[in-house]
Amino acid sequence: MTVTAITAAILVIGDEILSGRTKDKNIGYIAEYIGALGIDLREVRIVPDDEEEIVAALNALRTRYTYLFTTGGIGPTHDDITADCVAKALGVGIDIDERAVAMMRERYSAQELNEARLRMARIPFGAELIQNPISRAPGFMIDNVIVMAGVPAIMQAMLDDVAPRLRTGVRMVIETIDAHGMPEGIYAGPLAIVAKAHPTVSVGSYPSLVDGRFRNQIVVRGRDADAVSACAAAIQELLVPLRGDGAPA
Amino acid sequence: MTVTAITAAILVIGDEILSGRTKDKNIGYIAEYIGALGIDLREVRIVPDDEEEIVAALNALRTRYTYLFTTGGIGPTHDDITADCVAKALGVGIDIDERAVAMMRERYSAQELNEARLRMARIPFGAELIQNPISRAPGFMIDNVIVMAGVPAIMQAMLDDVAPRLRTGVRMVIETIDAHGMPEGIYAGPLAIVAKAHPTVSVGSYPSLVDGRFRNQIVVRGRDADAVSACAAAIQELLVPLRGDGAPA
Repeated sequence: MTVTAITAAILVIGDEILSGRTKDKNIGYIAEYIGALGIDLREVRIVPDDEEEIVAALNALRTRYTYLFTTGGIGPTHDDITADCVAKALGVGIDIDERAVAMMRERYSAQELNEARLRMARIPFGAELIQNPISRAPGFMIDNVIVMAGVPAIMQAMLDDVAPRLRTGVRMVIETIDAHGMPEGIYAGPLAIVAKAHPTVSVGSYPSLVDGRFRNQIVVRGRDADAVSACAAAIQELLVPLRGDGAPA
Repeated sequence: MTVTAITAAILVIGDEILSGRTKDKNIGYIAEYIGALGIDLREVRIVPDDEEEIVAALNALRTRYTYLFTTGGIGPTHDDITADCVAKALGVGIDIDERAVAMMRERYSAQELNEARLRMARIPFGAELIQNPISRAPGFMIDNVIVMAGVPAIMQAMLDDVAPRLRTGVRMVIETIDAHGMPEGIYAGPLAIVAKAHPTVSVGSYPSLVDGRFRNQIVVRGRDADAVSACAAAIQELLVPLRGDGAPA
């Protein structure tokens, strides 16, 4: 069975992430969320609030993957330039969108909707809006580009709104095998042989340090549950005779 | 005073980050660490454990910035292909490095240094090693590419070892102005004018939601302390007459 993969990239826009001032919380969240929809995250880029950099990254990523999710740069201040960059990358116009203004009226009086706030209603021509139940200023989707806020709670609400509009794929089946403290260096050789014998699945080995000791996990991922489970069984089997080697990782 | 900026990119290598299984903890750490050395982080990419993708990203980033830091993919298992990809990207050979073997002997007996573990001693020709005080298998630096482990504690120790070898720059001076709950939409207009009047510094406005309320901070960054402080003073001044507008953000 061949399944065309549905793929995605994330473009994080913001000087505050690159300076280390703000720690990104959106990449891991989006990765898990779209993974559950059967959409494979293939690449992430983080770029500064710079028009040329943003436009170049938008074009590199939107042309390569089924979807491109962006976060950040859609507020009312001068450093919020994402919407204009998306319009430029796609070669479409941009102006204040009356649907966006209507959404924002649920939060702001006519007097409060000053020039700066109306910047948040600037939407590229042809985009569909994405609801923002928290602070109302919407995100948008145009072609395969999904433009969301950087504030995690707002980004998460926008993802809930846009998700039903996305093409979804066959969800990855994942089996995790705990190596129970066995060092990677002990099982790496046999694991490579098993991985090669199961080419329809991917096999990864992920060490982490917990209280100064390695805790390794082997992860098998694939879209065919039988293939995943056959490979996982082969890995369990290869680990058995290796136990008892007391060497470090 | 014109200062040539020292710039950097980070390349995170690993399927486990893209699947959302592992949440990256290295980007923010490296960003802050090199920022303190006066090195500007300009771009980050996350790519899968795929040779073609890794080599393309290595070449795109190493040719554009003063330094390229990579994390992940230097363990003993079949999915650890970073060292080979770096050799390929730079067009140099790679083989087991006796200096690396000597370091690993501090941890492993001759018998324990099996074929898989010796993979961790494969180092591109011409590279300098980076010490790993935790599990001994070294990272390395070749030309402007700094190759480190993905496990945060090991990556951090490697960064400590390599940092004294890096060219450092003039550290950014940063002033943060708390908008004390004042909505971005109120100060965005005047802020844009002040930002434009201080072209040698960068001005960002960063909203975050704390217990359902926006807490905005304005950050001024630059290498000239006087310019940063003049701009910050101008921002403090513009905020004064705006207080008392009770509208939401």
